Amino acid sequence: MKNFTFKGFMVPVFTPFKADKSLDLEVIPKYAEYLKQKGIDAILVNGTTGEGMSMTTQERKSVAEKWAVERARLNFTMMVQIGGTSSADVFELARHAESIQVDGVLILPQLYKKPQSEAELIEYLEQVATHCPNTPIFYYHIPKYTKVDVNISRVISLARARLPTFAGVKDSSANLEQIVHALDAGVTIFLGTNAIFVGSLALGFDSFIMTPLNIYPEMNQAIREWMAEGNVTAARQLQKELNEKIREITEKGEFTAAMKAKFNQIVANFGLNVGGVRCPLKDVHF
Amino acid sequence: MKNFTFKGFMVPVFTPFKADKSLDLEVIPKYAEYLKQKGIDAILVNGTTGEGMSMTTQERKSVAEKWAVERARLNFTMMVQIGGTSSADVFELARHAESIQVDGVLILPQLYKKPQSEAELIEYLEQVATHCPNTPIFYYHIPKYTKVDVNISRVISLARARLPTFAGVKDSSANLEQIVHALDAGVTIFLGTNAIFVGSLALGFDSFIMTPLNIYPEMNQAIREWMAEGNVTAARQLQKELNEKIREITEKGEFTAAMKAKFNQIVANFGLNVGGVRCPLKDVHF
Amino acid sequence: MKNFTFKGFMVPVFTPFKADKSLDLEVIPKYAEYLKQKGIDAILVNGTTGEGMSMTTQERKSVAEKWAVERARLNFTMMVQIGGTSSADVFELARHAESIQVDGVLILPQLYKKPQSEAELIEYLEQVATHCPNTPIFYYHIPKYTKVDVNISRVISLARARLPTFAGVKDSSANLEQIVHALDAGVTIFLGTNAIFVGSLALGFDSFIMTPLNIYPEMNQAIREWMAEGNVTAARQLQKELNEKIREITEKGEFTAAMKAKFNQIVANFGLNVGGVRCPLKDVHF
Amino acid sequence: MKNFTFKGFMVPVFTPFKADKSLDLEVIPKYAEYLKQKGIDAILVNGTTGEGMSMTTQERKSVAEKWAVERARLNFTMMVQIGGTSSADVFELARHAESIQVDGVLILPQLYKKPQSEAELIEYLEQVATHCPNTPIFYYHIPKYTKVDVNISRVISLARARLPTFAGVKDSSANLEQIVHALDAGVTIFLGTNAIFVGSLALGFDSFIMTPLNIYPEMNQAIREWMAEGNVTAARQLQKELNEKIREITEKGEFTAAMKAKFNQIVANFGLNVGGVRCPLKDVHF
Repeated sequence: MKNFTFKGFMVPVFTPFKADKSLDLEVIPKYAEYLKQKGIDAILVNGTTGEGMSMTTQERKSVAEKWAVERARLNFTMMVQIGGTSSADVFELARHAESIQVDGVLILPQLYKKPQSEAELIEYLEQVATHCPNTPIFYYHIPKYTKVDVNISRVISLARARLPTFAGVKDSSANLEQIVHALDAGVTIFLGTNAIFVGSLALGFDSFIMTPLNIYPEMNQAIREWMAEGNVTAARQLQKELNEKIREITEKGEFTAAMKAKFNQIVANFGLNVGGVRCPLKDVHF
Repeated sequence: MKNFTFKGFMVPVFTPFKADKSLDLEVIPKYAEYLKQKGIDAILVNGTTGEGMSMTTQERKSVAEKWAVERARLNFTMMVQIGGTSSADVFELARHAESIQVDGVLILPQLYKKPQSEAELIEYLEQVATHCPNTPIFYYHIPKYTKVDVNISRVISLARARLPTFAGVKDSSANLEQIVHALDAGVTIFLGTNAIFVGSLALGFDSFIMTPLNIYPEMNQAIREWMAEGNVTAARQLQKELNEKIREITEKGEFTAAMKAKFNQIVANFGLNVGGVRCPLKDVHF
Repeated sequence: MKNFTFKGFMVPVFTPFKADKSLDLEVIPKYAEYLKQKGIDAILVNGTTGEGMSMTTQERKSVAEKWAVERARLNFTMMVQIGGTSSADVFELARHAESIQVDGVLILPQLYKKPQSEAELIEYLEQVATHCPNTPIFYYHIPKYTKVDVNISRVISLARARLPTFAGVKDSSANLEQIVHALDAGVTIFLGTNAIFVGSLALGFDSFIMTPLNIYPEMNQAIREWMAEGNVTAARQLQKELNEKIREITEKGEFTAAMKAKFNQIVANFGLNVGGVRCPLKDVHF
Repeated sequence: MKNFTFKGFMVPVFTPFKADKSLDLEVIPKYAEYLKQKGIDAILVNGTTGEGMSMTTQERKSVAEKWAVERARLNFTMMVQIGGTSSADVFELARHAESIQVDGVLILPQLYKKPQSEAELIEYLEQVATHCPNTPIFYYHIPKYTKVDVNISRVISLARARLPTFAGVKDSSANLEQIVHALDAGVTIFLGTNAIFVGSLALGFDSFIMTPLNIYPEMNQAIREWMAEGNVTAARQLQKELNEKIREITEKGEFTAAMKAKFNQIVANFGLNVGGVRCPLKDVHF
C-alpha cells in the first residue's frame, strides 16, 4: 500500500459547472494552476465543497480523472471523497479511485441506514476498503450533515486496530474535545473548521481541509507562520480578520453556495469561473 | 397528468439479488405472480424494502423496467421510489419513471444537505417534479432514517398549495399525531407501520405500504374486514398475533434484512427466492 | 404494597393560580366536584398539565394535600407526579406522596444528567422507589420534553424484573410502535395523546391521561362506547370532531396554556376558574 | 447595577456532602483556603460541578451563603448558578443571590418546556432578571445536558440588546465555531472545556470555568503563561499532559463523580474531603 505522508493545507476544490449546471471540466486545468500559484500542493475532489453528493457516479469519476491529470502535471497530493451514495456506487468509486492512483480516499458514512455504533461504521469502512485495497482510507466526520454522531476518537482507535489501510480522518464537527485525544494516535487528522484554525494549531493539529483555503490561502499560511514564530497575538488578529471575511460571505446564503460565489468574484481577474451550485443548493450572488 | 386513484394495500417489493449480490431480475415475474395470487394489486419499487438506496441508478432503472412489464402483464398500480441519491440521479430517475409511465413516484428528502424547513423541502420537491411533470408525486416521511423531521401535516398543506402534481405521502414515522390532521386534506396517505395497523384503520386511514404485506397479506386483509364489520375485538386479536410474528422475525436482525430472510422461507414452496441483502445491511438466516 | 387496579380515564388536573400566579387552593374543591359531575373518577396531580415543573416542592405538596382531601371526600383514584426536579426534592416528594397515601406516583426521568440507557433509568427509579416503598410507581415517557428517548417496551420489561412496586407507565410519545408490544405485559399503560385515541382503543389500550379530558370528557366517553359497540364509523367521526376542536384551541398558543384558557372559558358557567399559567408558559386568551 | 469586571480562572466548586449525602457545610472554609493558596480568586457555586441540580432550593441557598462568608473573608469573585429547577424556585434563587450580593448569576435554560428559539430563551432570562435587577446575569450554554441547542452568538447579540444586566455566558459546548464570533461583543465569555484550553487562548478567550481547575490549577496557569510568552510548543506540551491526566480520571466514571473522587485524593494531605456525589450520579473510587 501507498503511504500517506502529506501534512498541511489540502484544498477542497469546487466542481465547475456551466450555466446549465452540467460539468465544465475544461476549467479544471486553470483552477489547478491558480492553486499552485497560491502555494497549494494538495486537493480534495468531490467533497462537500465539490458537491460530490449532487453528482452522478459517472460525473464524479470524470471530475476525479480530470484532476488526476492535473495532479500528474502539477504534482498535487490528491484525495477523492467517494462516499455519500449507494453502497454499490461507493464500491465502484473505490475501485475507480484506486485505478487512477489517488493518494487517499475520504469516506462519508452511509446516509440512509446509518451506523448505530462505532463498530458498525468500521464494518462499513472495511467493506469499502476491500474495493481499494492499496489506497489509504480516511473517515469523513461531519455530523452536522450526516447525523452520524459517533465518538471520533473511538472510531480512530477501532479503525487502527481493524483496518490496515486506515490512514486518518477529516473532522468537520468543530468540536475538538474528542479529537484532541487522537492527536498522537499515529494517523493524519484533517480539521475542517476555519473559524477556530489558530486554536487548532495551538493544540497541535497540523493538517486542514477548509473551503476558504480556495479564497484566502495566504491568510491561513500567515497565521500558521505567526504561530510557528510564537507571535500568538499577530496570529489571533489575522484569524479575527479572516473570520470577519467569512462571516460576511456566509451571511449571504448556504455555506458552500456563498463560498463558491465569492470564489468566482475573487478569481475573476485570473480568468477563472467555476459557475453556480446544483440542487439542493441555491445560487448566491455577490 | 394522471390521476392517482388507488387506495388500499401497496406492497413494497424486495429487490432480488443473486448470491454475489448482483440483480436477479429473472425472479421478478414469479414474484409478481405470487403477489397477484395473494390478492395484491399495487407495488412500490426501490423503496426501503427494495434497498433502493443500495443500488446504482442504472440498477434502479432496470428493476423498475422489469416491474413495469409485470405491471402491464398482471395489472398492478405501480409506484417507484426515486429519491435518496444525488439530485442529478434523482432528476434522471424522475425522467425515467415518467418514461415508463408509472402511476406515481415516491421521493425521499435530500439526505446530505437536508432541508431546514418545510418550505425548503417543498422547493426540492418542486425541482424534482419538473422532471416528471405528468406523474403524481408523493413525499416519503421516514425521519428515523432521514433525520428530516418536518411537520408532515404542514408539508401536505404547503405541497398542495404549490405543487400541482402532489398526490400524497408515505408516513413511516409511527407517530400519527400530526398526520391525523391531514386525513381529509384530499391527498392519499400511505402509512408504513404495521404494528399499529388496526389503530390506523380506526382513525380512518385507508392506504398502507408495509413490508410484512409481502409475507402475511391475508392477516392485514382479515383485520381490515373485521374492522369493516365492526368486530373490533377480532381485529385486535389478529393484530396482536401479527405483531407477535413480526417481533419474532425482527429480533433476528435489522428490519429489512430479517423480513427478506423470512420472506424467502415462506415463499420457498412457491419456488421463489429473492436472495440476501446488500451492504450496509447484513444477511439474516432463519 | 397497594395494588393499582384502576383502568380508564384519569384527568391530569390544572393547578389553579391567582392573578399574581400564587396558588389558589380554594378552587380545588369545586374543580373536584366538576370532575365528579362529569363522570371522572381519577386524577393526576402535578403533571405537565398541572405545571408541576413550575412549582416549588412545598407548593407541590400543598396542591397534592388539597387534592387528597377531595380524593377522600369524593372518592378519586389519585396519582401524583413527583419527578422533574432535583433528586433531593424528588425523594422528598416520594416520601410525601406515600405519607398522604396516594394510589400511585408518576416519575419523570432526571432532566439534567439524563440516563444514557434503559438500565440507568431503572437505577434512578429504584432510588426513588426506596422513598415510597408501599406506593405503586409509574414511569413518565414524554421524550418531546425530556429528550430521554429510551425504548419504552424495554423499560417496562426491565422495570418489571427489578422494581417490585413498578405498576406501569404514562406514554405521551404519540408513537405507539414500541408500546404495543407491552400491551400484555401485566402493567397499566396510560396513553397521553388524544388525537389518536380511537386508534389506541382499537389496538387494545384502555387507560388514558389526556388534558382535553378536563374539557370534553363526554366526547372520549362516547368514542369509547361506540367502539365497545363496534360502531367504528361513529367513533371515528366523533374523534375527528374532537381533533378539530383541539386543533382550534392549540393554534392559539402552547398546548397547556391554551388548554387551560379554554377550560376556564368552558367552566365559567360552573363558577370555576383555574387562572393563568406560570413562566415559562405565556397566558393565552379566548 | 454592579459591573462585572472579572477575567481569568473561576473555579466551579464541588458541594461537600457527608457520608449520608447531606450537606457538609463546615468543609467550605478550608476548601476556600485551599483555593486561595492555589491562586484562585473566583468561584462558581451550585453549577454542574457543584451538583446544584441535585439539591433543594434551601440547600442551594445554604451553600451559597456559606461561600458568601468566605467570599467576604478571603475576597473571591463569586457567581452562583440559579437555574435548572422550577421557575418558582429560580425566581426565589435569583432574589436570594441578589440579597447576598453575589457578583453574578449563571442561569441554565428551562429544562422541561424548553425554549424553541433564541427569542424564547431571552424572554425567560428577562423574567428571571426581574428578580435580581442589580446583579449581572450570565447564560449557561451546555447543550450536552440541556438539549437546548441555540446559536450562542445569536443569544449574546439578542441578550445585549434586550437585557440591561446581561453580562455574558458560560459556553460548555466544546464547539467554538459559533462563540468565536462573539469574542469582541463586549461581554464576558467563560469557556468550560479544559481539553481545548490552549486552543481557546490562541483564539483570544480569556475566562474559564473548568472543573479540573480544582485539581490542577497550576497547569492551566502555566499554559496561560507559556502562551503569553509566545512559547506555543511548551504550552501545547503541557496541555497534552493535562489532557492525559483528565482522560485517566474520567475513564473511571461520570465526569463530575470522577473529578470529585480525584479531588478528594489530591487534597487529602490538605485535610480536605468533599465527600461523594448525589443521585443520579454514582460514587467513583480512586
